[in-house]
Amino acid sequence: MEHSTLIRVRYSETDKMGIVNNANYLNWFEVARTDFCRKLGKSYLEWESEGTCLPVVEAWCRYKNPAFYDDLLRIDVQVSELKRFSLTFSYRLGKEEDATLVAQGWTKHAIVDQKGKLIKGSNPFMDWIKIQVQGISEVE
Amino acid sequence: MEHSTLIRVRYSETDKMGIVNNANYLNWFEVARTDFCRKLGKSYLEWESEGTCLPVVEAWCRYKNPAFYDDLLRIDVQVSELKRFSLTFSYRLGKEEDATLVAQGWTKHAIVDQKGKLIKGSNPFMDWIKIQVQGISEVE
Amino acid sequence: MEHSTLIRVRYSETDKMGIVNNANYLNWFEVARTDFCRKLGKSYLEWESEGTCLPVVEAWCRYKNPAFYDDLLRIDVQVSELKRFSLTFSYRLGKEEDATLVAQGWTKHAIVDQKGKLIKGSNPFMDWIKIQVQGISEVE
Amino acid sequence: MEHSTLIRVRYSETDKMGIVNNANYLNWFEVARTDFCRKLGKSYLEWESEGTCLPVVEAWCRYKNPAFYDDLLRIDVQVSELKRFSLTFSYRLGKEEDATLVAQGWTKHAIVDQKGKLIKGSNPFMDWIKIQVQGISEVE
Repeated sequence: MEHSTLIRVRYSETDKMGIVNNANYLNWFEVARTDFCRKLGKSYLEWESEGTCLPVVEAWCRYKNPAFYDDLLRIDVQVSELKRFSLTFSYRLGKEEDATLVAQGWTKHAIVDQKGKLIKGSNPFMDWIKIQVQGISEVE
Repeated sequence: MEHSTLIRVRYSETDKMGIVNNANYLNWFEVARTDFCRKLGKSYLEWESEGTCLPVVEAWCRYKNPAFYDDLLRIDVQVSELKRFSLTFSYRLGKEEDATLVAQGWTKHAIVDQKGKLIKGSNPFMDWIKIQVQGISEVE
Repeated sequence: MEHSTLIRVRYSETDKMGIVNNANYLNWFEVARTDFCRKLGKSYLEWESEGTCLPVVEAWCRYKNPAFYDDLLRIDVQVSELKRFSLTFSYRLGKEEDATLVAQGWTKHAIVDQKGKLIKGSNPFMDWIKIQVQGISEVE
Repeated sequence: MEHSTLIRVRYSETDKMGIVNNANYLNWFEVARTDFCRKLGKSYLEWESEGTCLPVVEAWCRYKNPAFYDDLLRIDVQVSELKRFSLTFSYRLGKEEDATLVAQGWTKHAIVDQKGKLIKGSNPFMDWIKIQVQGISEVE
């Protein structure tokens, strides 16, 4: 259950080293998550407007090969872990042209309401995502 | 009635041309406005929490000389125009080391409430800023 | 001779006011220019690698209606002025769904070599863009 | 051997959740590294202009408590590991007002020349940083 999103590197995402600045990868991961939810049938915007927020509580990225301005990149994204109050998305970022691996990473998210409190009772988002990503076992 | 703020150029603010990317100047203008209000005695954060928001409705910038990573820059800021429902901040950005002019610009702001509606009645922010920037004539 | 580019608003492009932060529009303008050159047949990346750079020397934007996270926006871009050593791109930013005007702006660019010097002799980029945008008169 | 840097949260660094967007922390880490080198006596700008670059090859961050617009944050930074061709900086981000922990993280950097090649022979940066951070044992 993996989806992918294409990104074209923007000029503003590079830095004076001539390559993409490391912080932008976290923004791209967000783009991939957004696209992932839309493709599964319900946008993250809708989930948020109904009261489910997914703030990032931990993030990791390994930068393997640099990305350059105007590169076309493919981000593969999947849900790699579901816990009671959190979930983790994993990402693989590669060049569309020749599949060079650019980076790998993951982001762990709390599942909270609009006040930032963990959703401990009925959790429509969690029910939904579980159905979408069958095969991912929930860890208590 | 002018104030100034110091900014150190971040690596992430440069792009592959080796100089600061043009969009960052608008962020720096915001930093200068924030600092300006604080120095006048009431932070923009407080104004916003009390219901006054100042979204940018127009912006202009002329880039005179490039800024580089690690440059120390001074932003001079002043209120250059007050209208009934808007105000304009003007900026001059120079190198701290030798006063080289880096950029000039302005941002025009609507004065709205937290729902984004123009504040047409009593307007504590406008009353306050007028006292602060005597000499700036209000234009109807 | 107008082209358009679609942009999906990223979460990271919003700010605490709940709308897109004003500085991001300048990044989007860059995306639209990049796409414009590619559609005309030669990418900006190629031009730059052959020695033509187009640093922004002046920028202006009027923000008409807010853009929100996940909005799909269309940026129409055209070359609105050609001078001997500079050119200006103009932009119109609207919502794809209902054509609401979001912003209008322009960016003026010097045409320089990789050392940042104005290209005063033979100028392949200028020759090329003139052919592309017939109808735009050159101003001395 | 720890240093700290103060950061004021910018409006543009927040997102629609009302808190700082997760990607900005990586930019702040860069600010802290830059400041760290300057305080040790030689700026990263100088190192880079002499041929030493430190691209990020891996990054991790745990977000403990949200940071808000206008918060004053303190970033403590130290070198936590030195290997032959890489080093790791560790960061602790807290609120200046009450020492609330905001985030912890680290970034691992390759030590390369301006062409991006690992510096395998004489390495003035590594010699310098070792002296600065005595007590950090080198791992082969």
